[in-house]
Amino acid sequence: MAIKTMEDLFLHTLKDVLYAEKQVLKMLPRMSKQAGSPELKQALENHRAETEGQIERLGQVFEMMGKPARGVRCEAMDGIMDEASSIMEEVEDPEVRDAAMLSSAQAVEHYEITRYGTLMAWAKELGLSQAVPLIEQSLNEEKQTDKLLTNIANKRVNRAAKAA
Amino acid sequence: MAIKTMEDLFLHTLKDVLYAEKQVLKMLPRMSKQAGSPELKQALENHRAETEGQIERLGQVFEMMGKPARGVRCEAMDGIMDEASSIMEEVEDPEVRDAAMLSSAQAVEHYEITRYGTLMAWAKELGLSQAVPLIEQSLNEEKQTDKLLTNIANKRVNRAAKAA
Repeated sequence: MAIKTMEDLFLHTLKDVLYAEKQVLKMLPRMSKQAGSPELKQALENHRAETEGQIERLGQVFEMMGKPARGVRCEAMDGIMDEASSIMEEVEDPEVRDAAMLSSAQAVEHYEITRYGTLMAWAKELGLSQAVPLIEQSLNEEKQTDKLLTNIANKRVNRAAKAA
Repeated sequence: MAIKTMEDLFLHTLKDVLYAEKQVLKMLPRMSKQAGSPELKQALENHRAETEGQIERLGQVFEMMGKPARGVRCEAMDGIMDEASSIMEEVEDPEVRDAAMLSSAQAVEHYEITRYGTLMAWAKELGLSQAVPLIEQSLNEEKQTDKLLTNIANKRVNRAAKAA
């Protein structure tokens, strides 16, 4: 797709995020299966349900634009996922694996936070007023999930520091 | 490198971020050359100088650990860069190109924010107390740059909305 207008750019980014969310949806059950900490496992499982809702909302935005909800390959998300996969498989120590998974999950969240933030600004610019609250809801969920992961990561660090 | 301990994981992520920062250093002049808005151009040029300082600081952390400052390919950053390059080359309208570049630059910042945040927590865990303030300084710079880019992006959106 040639990108000529702001609408083209918005649509391209919407497709990128749809692809990214679908990859996340596939990855989360694999991660929660591997998680050692019950708190991390729970956070990943909750985020799976949230991700389904986010994909649903993206579909509604495509519909508002009269376009089919089709993703476009997002190499940034593929890169984050590839790294997460290889570290998950490679690391044997459950403590180190949880730390690595938290890091990967936060990289995912930050990618989504920046993209939803951009999409929200562009939706305003394009006068897609019904899309704005949908995107904002997903943005807020991603920010909340990132905060929750930071809390779990800090607890892990403090526990490890005490044990040392 | 096999990742067995938290120190291995820290070192792996340090290498990932070094690679990412070096890619950013190469990309920023290409982006600022293409930027239409003088404010965006200036922000990208300032961030270039900042990135040099961040690479220097990463080198100091490698040195503290007695390890050579070598990067490891980061596919997430490669993905962000590939997308930024192709959109920069493809989009002809300067207004749309600036919007796309702001989006790419913020994706870069968010990747760095999440990685420096993780490295800072792990440096504390590993008792690398001299590394903590170095990583924190880079983290704060990335957060500031992201805020600045958000301001520039919002100004662009408001200008475009008024013109519509």
